[in-house]
Parts: sequence; structure tokens; C-alpha cells
Amino acid sequence: MRLSGVGEFGLIKKLRDMCAGSPPGLIAGIGDDAAAVRTGNRNILVTSDMMIEGVHFDLSFTTFYQLGYKFLAVNISDIFAMGGRPGYFFASLGIPRSFRTADIEELYTGIKKIADESGVTVAGGDTCASGAGFVLSGTLTGEAKRVIKRSGAKKGDGVFVTDTLGDSAMGLRLLKRRGRRVRSFSSSAPRLKLMKRHLMPEPRPAGNLSAITSMIDVSDGLLADLGHICDESRVGAVIYRDKIPVSAELAGTAKSMNIDPVELALRGGEDYALLFTAPPGIRTRAFRIGEITGKGRFIIDEKGRKAVFKSEGYEHFR
Amino acid sequence: MRLSGVGEFGLIKKLRDMCAGSPPGLIAGIGDDAAAVRTGNRNILVTSDMMIEGVHFDLSFTTFYQLGYKFLAVNISDIFAMGGRPGYFFASLGIPRSFRTADIEELYTGIKKIADESGVTVAGGDTCASGAGFVLSGTLTGEAKRVIKRSGAKKGDGVFVTDTLGDSAMGLRLLKRRGRRVRSFSSSAPRLKLMKRHLMPEPRPAGNLSAITSMIDVSDGLLADLGHICDESRVGAVIYRDKIPVSAELAGTAKSMNIDPVELALRGGEDYALLFTAPPGIRTRAFRIGEITGKGRFIIDEKGRKAVFKSEGYEHFR
Repeated sequence: MRLSGVGEFGLIKKLRDMCAGSPPGLIAGIGDDAAAVRTGNRNILVTSDMMIEGVHFDLSFTTFYQLGYKFLAVNISDIFAMGGRPGYFFASLGIPRSFRTADIEELYTGIKKIADESGVTVAGGDTCASGAGFVLSGTLTGEAKRVIKRSGAKKGDGVFVTDTLGDSAMGLRLLKRRGRRVRSFSSSAPRLKLMKRHLMPEPRPAGNLSAITSMIDVSDGLLADLGHICDESRVGAVIYRDKIPVSAELAGTAKSMNIDPVELALRGGEDYALLFTAPPGIRTRAFRIGEITGKGRFIIDEKGRKAVFKSEGYEHFR
Repeated sequence: MRLSGVGEFGLIKKLRDMCAGSPPGLIAGIGDDAAAVRTGNRNILVTSDMMIEGVHFDLSFTTFYQLGYKFLAVNISDIFAMGGRPGYFFASLGIPRSFRTADIEELYTGIKKIADESGVTVAGGDTCASGAGFVLSGTLTGEAKRVIKRSGAKKGDGVFVTDTLGDSAMGLRLLKRRGRRVRSFSSSAPRLKLMKRHLMPEPRPAGNLSAITSMIDVSDGLLADLGHICDESRVGAVIYRDKIPVSAELAGTAKSMNIDPVELALRGGEDYALLFTAPPGIRTRAFRIGEITGKGRFIIDEKGRKAVFKSEGYEHFR
């Protein structure tokens, strides 16, 4: 069977079966945003993300500085999704021979920028030549007092997201159309803000961690990532279309382009907001968008019509 | 300046300067085989290695099983080089769409094989599509009672290697000439053994860790890696050509091919033996090949002639 048949999530399930068992000290592993290991009296988190030129980024409209910033940002988002605080970052780079030293220095300036903002130490890594495109693989460690997994959602919990969704997907559309890099975000133009949300996502931790029952970061798209929580927690969910938070910038831009902004919010991906479940009365500044149920996955539209949703976010290998 | 001008080691030096400072808890970072972080009362090690198709491996003469085995082996070697015990492994894969699911399962079978042999837990990772070749990036954690760095060598120390050198480089030559995969290593043919040393290196920890002053694994080549120890420890070294350990298989095969086996041992690389320094009288089963001096890097040949050596092992970007 070709990978294009089984798909990425099918492959991850197969690999998990191969690596089954309950190794001592492993609290979370394949299937969560980060692995969690109990070491002494501490919960150590480790996450890895790979970014490949032509698949995850396009240097025709991404500067090396922005790429470095996003490279670490997506890893920080994974640590936040486990309820953790980020620690040490390790960057492995496969670099085409044609690149200039200044390109890699600019990349590191972007990495250092968000590292300093987030209290992350850039601790090591590996560089090698790449015969094909630019490849970045990052590993970030973290620590969590209590590890929050995808599998803890309970029937009756509320479903929450920490930020507006869909900006990144719209920003990507705008960048593809523009076809060249944005050197400065100093203007307050709405379209520039949307492009920035795609190029330099700014992950933020969820508040009130002790009440959260399950969490994931929105990288594949809201429906896909809510589907991951339902899969791991063996529950269902219902969400309300009119409760999905959308920014004013997205609403305005989508209107002028005759696009439904909520569709981008539901399926766009790369938002790096956090999606979590918690008792419905929790004190939080996050947006409540639905509830966890016994089974089924439904979305209710503005007119009260109920539809089944499938978790078809962005999936590799299709 | 192009990367092909500054070279890999030049780039790593530049990046280290950018990430300078003494972050709390970081015992070793960029410039060692693994980073070491003091967490509670433990020394946690983290190492990352990237392998790119066409640069680090060739699927025309490597099976997926062998590739998986080597992928984890090179990371285990880095943990051993820091005096550590390996713990949890995280594999990130960038997979061409044309690959079969069975290919990745076979890769994981190889990873699992050496993981089980070495007490490593395969704990997580990431898969994505690659538009170019196959890309593997692995992160392995470990723990060390005492962290052994490259920077601890002292004048008067002996220089030791834990295993014969050059087999892997010869194995690679044989594999390139053969141009197809080896499915079984059951025969005892010397050439098969050399090819296996390239395809499936078996890292072993050094004994008597408490006496070791500095250590590195031989991946770039003996001269290059001894050069790294001299750089980091700010010392010189002298080694003796006739003390460089060479296997009977390499000696015999090299003779029939009219190649100097010691040249392969000095510069070949990918041996994944350990090179360490320790007081000269240390009890060890390792081979003593020279001494640490105040400065200069010399190799003395069979006739007692002294020559300066340069640390030109394999370097990316040249």
C-alpha cells in the first residue's frame, strides 16, 4: 500500500501499534503533541517538528528571519499544548550548498528573537548539506507540573479555543497571490496582519491549566484537531458555527474576496491557537465553541441545522 | 559568503557565537556530541542527527531496515560519547509520496531492533510528506552521572579509541561498487563484514568512564574528530600511525585492492567508535594511539618521521 493511500494519520496509528507497550516513565508518546517522560520527580516534555522547503514553507514569500521565528514557534505551541513551559531548543538543518552564511545567520536571528521572548535556550543541533531543498528539524524540551494529553476529554466538558482561527490560512492565500516577501509589518493594514499570522505565529499558553481535561494545538485545522481529541478520548463533540471566533481582519478581507471566513477557521490550519476541553463553568478568557458528547461529531449552523463533520483537515500524503 | 566557503565547522562556530551566554542549567551545548542540561539532580542529554537521502545514505544499496538501525545507532553513539546511557528516541520523517507503507514499517523494524538491544524507548515523532528525497531527523535523550565533554583533555593524557577504524569507509566503497542491497549478513565473508560495519554500526559505551577526561565519537574521521578535541580542549596531540587499530578484514581487503588501510582509518569516518583521552595508565580495553601535548598536531609514521596533520575529515558544504 502506498502512503498516499493510508495517509499520515493512518501511518502514525500503525507506527504506534509497532511501538506499543508501556515503557517505564513514558506518560505520553506517539499520538500527542509532545512526549512526556517522568524523570525523578519531574515531567520532561520533548517535541519534534520537521519543516521541508516546498511542503511547509516557500522562500519566495518567507524571509529566513520569519522562517526561524516560525520554526521555533510551532515547537513552543506543542509544549504549550501539553500544559508545559518550554526549555531547550535543538535545531538540525539540512542546507542547500547555494545558501549564503548570512541566510543561516538571519534564520538564527529569528530563532533567537522568539527564544528570548519565550525564555527558551537555543542549546545545540546539527548542520549538514542537503542535496534537495532546505530542511529544518527542531526539537524542543519542556517541563510540565501536570501533563495534559489529548485523551482526557469527558462527556459534558465545554470545548474552547484560545484565539481567533483562520487568519493564517487567509494570510497564506494572500502571500501566494503576492508571491514575494514582506519585509516589514509596521503598517496596520489588515492584510499585513493576516500574513503575519501565517509567517510568524505567536503561541500563547492557556490559562487555568488545572481545570483543563484535554488539549491540542490547532495545526491541522480545527475540525481535524478536534477529531484527534475525540479519537484519543473516545468521545463525541458538537460545535456551533456562530461561536467560532474570527478576527475582524479575516471577516473584512474574506467578505471582499467572497470567501466564507468560518470555512477557513474550521479547516485552514496552522493557527497555533490551543483547543482544549474543560468543565463548562471554567473561568477562562478562551472562546467556548461547543461541548463534548458521548459520541458523534456534529456542527450546528446559524439556523440550528445539524451536520456531521469529518476531521478532514490538512493531511500529508494525500 | 557562500556556505561552501565557510564550511560546516565554520558555520557551527558562528552559530555558537550568536547563541553565546551561560544559560542556567546548560552544561554542554553547541560543539559537543549532545547537549547536557542539569534538571533537578540529574544530567539530561539530548542529541539530534539528520540524515538526508543522497547525502547520508543511498537507497540503492541500503535497505529500510538497515537505515532504521543506523538512524538510531548514530544517535546512541552521540549519547555514549557524552558518557551517557540512552533513553527515549523521537523520529521525524519527511517521506516521499511514492514510498510504500511497508518501507516505513521496515524502517521502524530496524529502529526497534537496536532500540531493544540498547534499552531505548521509541517515544514519538512526526511524519510529513517530502517533495524531495527521504529525510530522517532523530532526537535521542539520555542521562549521565557525569557528563564527559570534548573540552577536558589535559597535556600528558593518553589518546584512546575503543574499536578498529576504517571498516565503514571500506564498506562504503564496496557497497558503491556493488550498487545493490545486501539482504543477509549470515555469511562470514570479510567484505560482507565491512559492508555491515557501514550499514549497521554497533555503538558500544566506553568502559571506566570515571577516568576519562574528554570524549567524542568518530563520525567525521579520526583526524577530524581528534582535531575537535584539540580545538575544544586547547591542547595539541601526537598519534602513532602503527598504533591505529585496523581489522583483519580491512587489512586483507585493502591489500587486495592496493589501498592503504591506515588512510581509511585516519580519514574515513562513520566509524562510531569512541575516541577519548585519559591518564596514560588507565585500565581499559581500548587501543592507545597517542598522547595529548601542549600544542601542535602530529602524526608519527612507522619509520619515526613526524608530520603535521590537519583535521580534514569529511566536512559538509565543501
